[in-house]
Parts: sequence; C-alpha cells; structure tokens
Amino acid sequence: MTRVLLTGFEPFGGEETNPSWEAVRAAAARAPEGLALSTARLPCAFGTALDALREAVERTAPDLVLCVGQAGGRPDVTVERIAVNIDDARIPDNAGARPVDEPVVPGGPAAYFSTLPVKACVAAVREAGLPASVSQTAGTFVCNHVFYGLMHLAATERPGLRGGFVHVPYAPAQVTDRALPSLPVPAVAEALCVIAVTAAGRTTDIRAEGGATH
Amino acid sequence: MTRVLLTGFEPFGGEETNPSWEAVRAAAARAPEGLALSTARLPCAFGTALDALREAVERTAPDLVLCVGQAGGRPDVTVERIAVNIDDARIPDNAGARPVDEPVVPGGPAAYFSTLPVKACVAAVREAGLPASVSQTAGTFVCNHVFYGLMHLAATERPGLRGGFVHVPYAPAQVTDRALPSLPVPAVAEALCVIAVTAAGRTTDIRAEGGATH
Amino acid sequence: MTRVLLTGFEPFGGEETNPSWEAVRAAAARAPEGLALSTARLPCAFGTALDALREAVERTAPDLVLCVGQAGGRPDVTVERIAVNIDDARIPDNAGARPVDEPVVPGGPAAYFSTLPVKACVAAVREAGLPASVSQTAGTFVCNHVFYGLMHLAATERPGLRGGFVHVPYAPAQVTDRALPSLPVPAVAEALCVIAVTAAGRTTDIRAEGGATH
Amino acid sequence: MTRVLLTGFEPFGGEETNPSWEAVRAAAARAPEGLALSTARLPCAFGTALDALREAVERTAPDLVLCVGQAGGRPDVTVERIAVNIDDARIPDNAGARPVDEPVVPGGPAAYFSTLPVKACVAAVREAGLPASVSQTAGTFVCNHVFYGLMHLAATERPGLRGGFVHVPYAPAQVTDRALPSLPVPAVAEALCVIAVTAAGRTTDIRAEGGATH
Repeated sequence: MTRVLLTGFEPFGGEETNPSWEAVRAAAARAPEGLALSTARLPCAFGTALDALREAVERTAPDLVLCVGQAGGRPDVTVERIAVNIDDARIPDNAGARPVDEPVVPGGPAAYFSTLPVKACVAAVREAGLPASVSQTAGTFVCNHVFYGLMHLAATERPGLRGGFVHVPYAPAQVTDRALPSLPVPAVAEALCVIAVTAAGRTTDIRAEGGATH
Repeated sequence: MTRVLLTGFEPFGGEETNPSWEAVRAAAARAPEGLALSTARLPCAFGTALDALREAVERTAPDLVLCVGQAGGRPDVTVERIAVNIDDARIPDNAGARPVDEPVVPGGPAAYFSTLPVKACVAAVREAGLPASVSQTAGTFVCNHVFYGLMHLAATERPGLRGGFVHVPYAPAQVTDRALPSLPVPAVAEALCVIAVTAAGRTTDIRAEGGATH
Repeated sequence: MTRVLLTGFEPFGGEETNPSWEAVRAAAARAPEGLALSTARLPCAFGTALDALREAVERTAPDLVLCVGQAGGRPDVTVERIAVNIDDARIPDNAGARPVDEPVVPGGPAAYFSTLPVKACVAAVREAGLPASVSQTAGTFVCNHVFYGLMHLAATERPGLRGGFVHVPYAPAQVTDRALPSLPVPAVAEALCVIAVTAAGRTTDIRAEGGATH
Repeated sequence: MTRVLLTGFEPFGGEETNPSWEAVRAAAARAPEGLALSTARLPCAFGTALDALREAVERTAPDLVLCVGQAGGRPDVTVERIAVNIDDARIPDNAGARPVDEPVVPGGPAAYFSTLPVKACVAAVREAGLPASVSQTAGTFVCNHVFYGLMHLAATERPGLRGGFVHVPYAPAQVTDRALPSLPVPAVAEALCVIAVTAAGRTTDIRAEGGATH
C-alpha cells in the first residue's frame, strides 16, 4: 500500500471553482487499488500554501505527493518537469500578495527536478485515452511556489519522499463563453488516478521524448 | 413532436473516429423529450455527402435538420451562422477529390444564413455548463458543402424545413499527444440535445451579441 | 493607368493607431508603377463608414477599390473571400453603436464574393517574402460592413468596379506587452502595393488552394 | 567600453535561414555606442555548440555574452529567465543527435538564472516600440543547452562574466504560407542592440512583474 497525498487548490483569479481540487476529490473517491489516498486543499497564497502542505505531509506521512493546480488555457494534463526558486506574481494571490522576483526559499538551489517518473506518467495518461504532455515550466505563481517548496522539503527534511506537480485544464463550466480549452473534472480525475498509480509503481522513468525546442 | 434529423460524418483526414457521428449517435440514444430523432452518417466526400443528406431528408421528412461536423482545434461547440457557395479543399476528401473554388451549387446564391435560432442555441448550451459560441465560417470543405446544400434544399424544395450546422471539437482520444483542445463525446452529445430542443422550441432568435471584429 | 482607391480606418477599440490607415498612406507614398492611387480614411462606425466610402468612390472614380482594416491577433496579411449581410458588434463602434444581427443592406443578398483575384494576390505577397493567406470571414463588425457595402455598391450602381477587402496585423508598437503577432507598417504597405498591382493586372484568378476545413 | 559577445545559430529543423544569426549580424553592423561587439555563429548541435561558444569566449574575452536563438511561433522577443540542466530533443539536432533526459553538465546544478537584468531588458525593448516579454523556459533543445553551458562556464571558470539568452521570432520569409507570427530581422536586430546596451549599462534589475501563473 503506497501512501499518496494529493493536493488541489482553492479558486483564484476571480474563478468560482478550481478544477484541481474538484479533480483531486473525485480521484480520491475512486480509491485506486493499491493506494492509500489522502487529500488536502491548499490556499492560493504564497507562504500559507506551503504551511498547509507541510501540515498535510506531517499529518499523512506520504510516500508520494502529487500537487495539482489549474493551468487555465492549457488543453491537456501536464506533468511538470522542474520547479524554480522564484516567485513572480502576474496577479495578486488570494491574500493580496504580489511578490516580484523573490526566492521561494532564500539560499535554496535555483531549481529542483520532479521526482515523479514524468514520461511514464504522461505515457500512461495517453494510454488511457486522455491528452497529456510534459511541461517545462510551472510558471512563477503559487503553483510553482508549492512545487518548489515540496521538492525542497523532500530534499532537506524528508529523504525518500517522492513528489511532483500536475497542471490541469479549466473545467468546461469555467469557459462557457470564452473559447478556451477545457476538460471535464471526471476525465481529469481519471488522469490523476493513472498518474498516482504509475508514480507509485515505479521509481525509474521510461525513455521517451518530451522536450520542447523553445 | 418535432421530427429532427441529426447527421454526423465518417472519419476523415487520417483520423480513426469522427466525434460528430459519435456524438450524434449518443444524442439520439438520449431521446430528448418532445423530439423524434433520426440520424444519418454522411460520407466525407463532396457530392456524395449531399446525396446521402437528401436521401435521409426524404426518408425521415424532418421539420428540422442539424448537420454536425468535426472542427479539429476549436475548443467549443460552435453554431455556424452562414454557409457559402464555394468548395475549396485544403486536403483531399475521402474519395480523393480536391475541388478548388468551385460552387457547391452552380448559379446558387453566394450564401445562406442558418435558419436555426443561432444565438438562443449558443445561450442554451452555455446555460447547460458547456462551452459554445457562434462561428462566422464553416470553412470551405465538406462541412460547409453539406451546410450549403442543406440550406439550398430547404430554400428551393422544402419550404418550412429549418436547419443549420454545428461544429464540434476533437474527442480527447484523438489528441492524446497533440496539445489541442478536446471535449468528450458525452458532453458534445448533451450540447447537441440542448441545441435540438432549443431549435425545435422556437423559430425566432434572442437578441444577443455573437459577432467578431474580424 | 488603373485608378485604385485604397481605404484604411481610424483607430478603434481603445487603440491609438490603426495600422490599416498607416499602411495605406505608406503604400500611396510608394506610388506603385502603373497605378493612380487615391486614399481615404474611413471612420470606424456603422453607416458613416459607408457614407465616406461612397463619397470617396464618387470623388475618385476608381477602377479598383481595396478596403483595408486591422485584424488584431492575425499574424499575416489576409485577403478576404466573402462579405456577409450582417452587422453584429462585439464591441461598440466609434459612435457608440452596437448593432446585433441587423443587415448591412436590408433586402440585400446574404453575401458577396470579393471580385479581387484573391488567390493571385495571396501568392504575390508570399512571393515578395511576406506572410499572407485567404480568409473565409471578415467578421461582423465595421470591416465586414464596409466590405459588404462596397460589393453592394459595385453590384447595384457601379458595373465594372472591382474590389475587395484586406485585413492586416497589429503594428509592433500596439502589442509591446501583449504577446500577440504583429507586422511593421512598411512590410504591410509593401504587401498592399503587391496586392494592388496584382489585382490591377488581372481579372481572373489563379487556381490555388486557399480553403479551410472549418 | 563593454565587450559584448553576441551569438546566433545556423539554421535547423528544415529551415533555410535562422533569424537569430541574421539579427546578430545586423546588430553588430549597427555598432551600438559604448559597446565593442563580437559575434559568433554556433552550430545547432549538442556539444559542438558549446565548444564553439567556449572558443568564442576565449577568443573575445567578453564582459557580457548574449546568446540568441530562434523560437518559431513566439510573437515577440523573449528574454529567458532560467536555463535548466537537461537535454531532451523533440527533433534531431543538425548532427543527428537526439538526447533524451540527459544532463547538459553531469553533476551540474538543476538550473542557473540568467545574470542579465531581464526585466530592464524587456522594458527597454518595449520602450523602443517592439514587443518583448520574459520567458520562463528556453526549452530543452540546443538553445537551452547553450544557455546552460554559458551560465555554467561563467559560474565555474569565468567569475564576473555576465550573460543570458534571448529568443527571437521567425522572420516573415520563413512563414509566408504558415500563418505563424514573425518579426523582420531589422526589428529584431534593433531589439538585440537595446538589450545589449541595457545589460551593459546596469548590473541590477528593475522591479517589474514578468511572471506567469503557469
């Protein structure tokens, strides 16, 4: 039994819902075989999001952490490759903070790679008939902040803890009149289950192209 | 009881499925109240597609015809406003034909407007929580060919027959590795039912903006 | 000597410039050989734009009219194929009008095709090293309004007058912080000269694909 | 006099030209005041590109290095924020190599931040009327490879050497029939001069938002 912590976010940026949290809840309800799933809903705010993540990690003592966030405008489920040590907020977070070019962790390394088998996760979601790809950037807002904080926690305090970040598209109801890509929450939840099972089942990645020319 | 004919297309352009036909079948299986639904699967070929449409219209004597086609790359369900009297094929059709700047109907008018309540249909789909918009062009391939042929048939031989065209996004399984927008077939089928019920229930449109600056 | 009237628009939608008028002025300054160029700057307002166009046509008695408008977001110079008999304003025009689903000309045909050699114009711009394509819709705002009005004028009052519409991208200075495509005004002016010379030099089009699947 | 090395790339991916090299040459011909500019044209190949960069750095002993590459599809000049220690080639390089998930420098840190004043450079290009933005990823192909190698060289062997990477759009002639964004080489060259002068003139950055939510 692999203990997996799945986190999603509260709504932000004027949205009334956040598909990351809706999909995390729906994934947990499916109870994928072989996994003991816990969930946590993180505030969309620099600092307090990481406090909540740390609290959830301490409470659930997971083997694997999948943090999930909304990537409005992306058409597919994206497994992030790398977290960077920078906060640069294009919009205010839910507490009104808007840091510019501040480190997530002062003195921390410039970046951490995900310790998920990123390529295997992408391949497994595609195999399930759903669109997925590797992403080379998780941005510089609260999603990347949480992703970096998670990897720093694992690197400095939780040896053996593996983890990573997954971005998910808007839900259809968020974009009824905006002509932006979307994916229903049940499809996203299925993708998250596939990713959790894949990541729980292997520590090495497959060899598969997932790069970008720029 | 309004008799509604729903048509979808066979796959084309190297695809193995066509979400327009899958969604039409799924919509018919839902049997929306107050409608007597018939369906037809059209070949994706200039000329024979219109023969099949005419045959289906004669067979089912509909009050309303909704032709549906795949618009790969569009993120939402689009209700087409206007059909134009031109065939200009960027790719060969399924019979290998590739007409360039030929009229759908020699001597026919340059265009026909849809006789669906286009704005009301878009509003109803959005009300159901799904993304939709008005489209100002159905292209110049077999979809527009069928749309124009339908409207010409209604205008010249079938007084009282109302109809129009709806474009639908790729299904997720078509774009697992392509980073293009998609919408699952059940969601599209729901949108088609909403459009059919809306169009059956009113002959005048609502006043709602649905334009484009270009 | 072919008499050519080139029209551009005043700024709209909160912009401080309109590259259509800037490029028309720059094209006229180049004085392409064999053409007698006149220009007119049209207001971006339903109705008065057509009044100004009619006045310019009466004043200059052109053989050929090229109306040019801004298509913010398009990356290339697009030669429009067809004008449709509808006004549907997503934003107010410069006089504050916002018509919804009103005809440009009550009782007019649903659409008019451009009488430019559209494909030859696109090919000539590409040959000059600049990006161009056929567009299947000029939208439903003032650009399409002027395009339809021009073609209706030619069809009903000015036999022999040929004309069409060309959409051009933003100028770079309009999008310095918006990550949208742009093309400098001199490049657009060159494209307009190429189109004017091409359209003046031939009345029949070349056979070249320029369609869209949707 | 600040010694600045500007590098561009040879063509790749089936293109016949590379606007990065064309623009670097054009920038050098402008000889911006206060700068002593040298240039180098790098092969688009993993490994040998870095050999050529090192050779150019040794030859010219620059204070500042600006590496420039083509980002086909981006509409604006993008100043890269961070280089990551990974090679993952979506297409073969010009020597036929296609590494997957290999480090640029085995044992090197996960990433290096640019030591350009990234925000000041973006602001200065915009001030000059040209489109620019911060980019959060330089991809995982030869551009990122060179960027990472440059920053590693500076960090390990060349204390005081500052540097970074700039991605530039296609030239118009590359996309005449592709409906992708482009920017003429002279405009790109002007942007590169502005960036070189700005980076030469200040070592600290301005406080300006340049982030991404994802």
